[in-house]
Amino acid sequence: MRYPPLLTDFYELTMLAGYFEQGMTRKRAVFDLFFRKNPFEGGYAVFAGLEPALDYLEGLAFRPEELAYLHGLGLFKPEFIEFLREFRFRGTVTAPPEGSVVFANEPLLTVEGDLAEAQFVETALLTIINFQTLVATKAARIVRSAAGAPVIEFGLRRAHGPDGGLSCARAACVGGVCSTSNVQAGMIFGLEVRGTHAHSWVQAFTDELAAFRAYAEVFPAATVLLVDTYDTLHSGIPNAITVARELRARGHELRGIRLDSGDLAYLSREGRRMFDAAGFPGVKIMASNELDEFVIESIRAEGGRIDMYGVGTRLATASGVGGGALGGVYKLVELAAMPRMKVTSDLAKATVPGRKRLMRVYGAGGEMLQDVLCLEQDRLTAGDTVYDPAHPLQRTVLPAGCLLRDLRRVVMRDGQRNEPPEPLFTLSARSREELDRLPPGCLRLINPHRYKVSLSERLHGVRNELIGQLHCREG
Amino acid sequence: MRYPPLLTDFYELTMLAGYFEQGMTRKRAVFDLFFRKNPFEGGYAVFAGLEPALDYLEGLAFRPEELAYLHGLGLFKPEFIEFLREFRFRGTVTAPPEGSVVFANEPLLTVEGDLAEAQFVETALLTIINFQTLVATKAARIVRSAAGAPVIEFGLRRAHGPDGGLSCARAACVGGVCSTSNVQAGMIFGLEVRGTHAHSWVQAFTDELAAFRAYAEVFPAATVLLVDTYDTLHSGIPNAITVARELRARGHELRGIRLDSGDLAYLSREGRRMFDAAGFPGVKIMASNELDEFVIESIRAEGGRIDMYGVGTRLATASGVGGGALGGVYKLVELAAMPRMKVTSDLAKATVPGRKRLMRVYGAGGEMLQDVLCLEQDRLTAGDTVYDPAHPLQRTVLPAGCLLRDLRRVVMRDGQRNEPPEPLFTLSARSREELDRLPPGCLRLINPHRYKVSLSERLHGVRNELIGQLHCREG
Repeated sequence: MRYPPLLTDFYELTMLAGYFEQGMTRKRAVFDLFFRKNPFEGGYAVFAGLEPALDYLEGLAFRPEELAYLHGLGLFKPEFIEFLREFRFRGTVTAPPEGSVVFANEPLLTVEGDLAEAQFVETALLTIINFQTLVATKAARIVRSAAGAPVIEFGLRRAHGPDGGLSCARAACVGGVCSTSNVQAGMIFGLEVRGTHAHSWVQAFTDELAAFRAYAEVFPAATVLLVDTYDTLHSGIPNAITVARELRARGHELRGIRLDSGDLAYLSREGRRMFDAAGFPGVKIMASNELDEFVIESIRAEGGRIDMYGVGTRLATASGVGGGALGGVYKLVELAAMPRMKVTSDLAKATVPGRKRLMRVYGAGGEMLQDVLCLEQDRLTAGDTVYDPAHPLQRTVLPAGCLLRDLRRVVMRDGQRNEPPEPLFTLSARSREELDRLPPGCLRLINPHRYKVSLSERLHGVRNELIGQLHCREG
Repeated sequence: MRYPPLLTDFYELTMLAGYFEQGMTRKRAVFDLFFRKNPFEGGYAVFAGLEPALDYLEGLAFRPEELAYLHGLGLFKPEFIEFLREFRFRGTVTAPPEGSVVFANEPLLTVEGDLAEAQFVETALLTIINFQTLVATKAARIVRSAAGAPVIEFGLRRAHGPDGGLSCARAACVGGVCSTSNVQAGMIFGLEVRGTHAHSWVQAFTDELAAFRAYAEVFPAATVLLVDTYDTLHSGIPNAITVARELRARGHELRGIRLDSGDLAYLSREGRRMFDAAGFPGVKIMASNELDEFVIESIRAEGGRIDMYGVGTRLATASGVGGGALGGVYKLVELAAMPRMKVTSDLAKATVPGRKRLMRVYGAGGEMLQDVLCLEQDRLTAGDTVYDPAHPLQRTVLPAGCLLRDLRRVVMRDGQRNEPPEPLFTLSARSREELDRLPPGCLRLINPHRYKVSLSERLHGVRNELIGQLHCREG
């Protein structure tokens, strides 16, 4: 997939032209991409979109027709258009592996390069990372709520356009969703595709039983019947049982049924009872209809007997409180080897300046204790004191016996990927495994435990000093 | 832009294979695409996405690699794959002009064709129409709230992926937004692109004034300065006034400033006062930062002096109560010349069967009175009684002197567009003009007046009869 270079806010181009005119394009710059609040007011996020973002950076180049368009706007000088003709991304990118569990205020991508290239890629990186991280996080929340029952992504028709549906299927997989209804995503990303029939299939036959029989005739080994077109308990399930018997007589087993309306907890319990009583304990019950993590939790709490969930709209649009969009930002943290910082009256919104490492602190059992941002040259160890960036009086000592790991690595150097893309199932396994190491309170859907993201003593010092300087200078 | 045929839910393919095996592909079918609730709990929707939907239908064809992928799934017979090789859309589509004001339960697209082709296109049509109609409606709400001040679309970085941003810019234009920050949308759709600089531009210089001067030097005729990096009233605006004086001395006028944080109503009043006092009444004040129709209304209510609004996240993601997704559906209403209907226990959710016309009823002054669905052969006139589909005891008589217009026309026949695509500014003008004809209560953002969508007497009769038949048969 090509991401066109014009996939950008116009101000990236006007700023680029400005840096070009001011002779500033070659200043070395470092930008951090981060978000300030975990999505869904939750306890974590699942980092996704890295591979597409690297695709974008590797492929960044203006085509003649794109340059002609920019020239035609009448705002840019010919020398600048010529500069764009040779413009490529040759910078360095540091990031956690895709599928990692991450938190608010952690630098996800750090982009280092000439000011021109490092600034220009802002919009596209945000567009890709914001959405995929949002959906991967939503998917992880939903998958956790299903407690082991597979979750299928069904959202294409309500997604934000065709590519919204495609990116959604990919990101949902990073978050642990096992398959999708989106055939294009199946082909491009190698995901398992699922789906059987709609209500219109049932309407197209003289009656429901005829429709079920026809479907079972065509796909005897893969029949899942949608049972709610007329009346789930009095028509749909009895007809499905008839077809299950007929299939068995021909050496096949009915794969399952799908419930798409009504009280899913009650209907699934009744359906389970009816199929078991009829001698079909192997028939799976699948559910869909405006599901999300909260609906699934409540169905399980009421003893629903659902074997598989199809989740559409609310996954594809990542809806819910604190959802819909991830507010990732991209901030200058160093220019010409000097740390830069955006200071606001709210300390919690002030950025963390300079080139940093993101360390993850584990207990002896491999459980995650907290994350610490430190300077590149810091050598963090057990016994060190670390500081809460928003409340500097709150400090913690890293406990004896803890293990520290640098969560990020250089994934792109001089505009080239360091390693080939990882397969999606690796990313999916990573998110699952990391979520298992998280303090359980962080997984809570509402009012989760706040996972600590601290500053090392030296980084804390640099930041304080810079805040002091800026306050003196500005006012 | 190519919309791949695999841009679909898998069940469209399994159903297609089923119809193929059952010898049913050539049955004539009619499907209606409609939504059941106006988005944002509002009083209307702006229909958008028609031209891209027609692009999809015209271009529908499987490529060899797509067929190879489907073959490799192991579920489909070779004869079916061969059938797909020749598969095209050759049906007929009826729709309102894009940009029309439409309402819940109105057939937007009616697709008539062989059962195979008419069923298959369901997912893609929904994906395209749902999102664009949702965003066009959100845009119209925002544009109305701005009461004449231009609105710029800024949402790319928070959109649902690159194409989400692109579709958003197009649909926002249909809803009345005048320009976009999205350069790709500018190139593809001919929209005006806007944007100047980010906070990082200011941070890249030794101080704010140096940054402003540099920008004004590069773009003397098009300078809009972002004034909130340090302190809007004590640093940003005074520095902008200095630059405005310097520009004037060189024969240019500062175009404007942008406020991106803080109390926008207060800051814009103060800013206006400061620029006017300094002799710059022509400097425009632009505002951004999590704006939507409600925030803009409240800024105006407090006497804010904002000349232009930049709206990002909440437009691009169409967020808000009743937003995020449009729940459009696609239902079989006729098969082999027999009307079909989905009956549920809730009369409001039962579909309206058969091939229909959508008539708009106007008063003598051109104001919209109500819409009426009728049978194709109905000749509706003043004096006719029409029925509320959800509450059949509620009926209205079409008033004397009213004018009736068939809102829809055949836009595609035998798979070919009837007319060339309309330019976007035509669609934008249409939505603006139609909203002006709407009862003003329908424009209210909260608890709007419900615009009537009735059934003609004969259609009401057909529907009642079918409900009776289905209830006898099923229950």
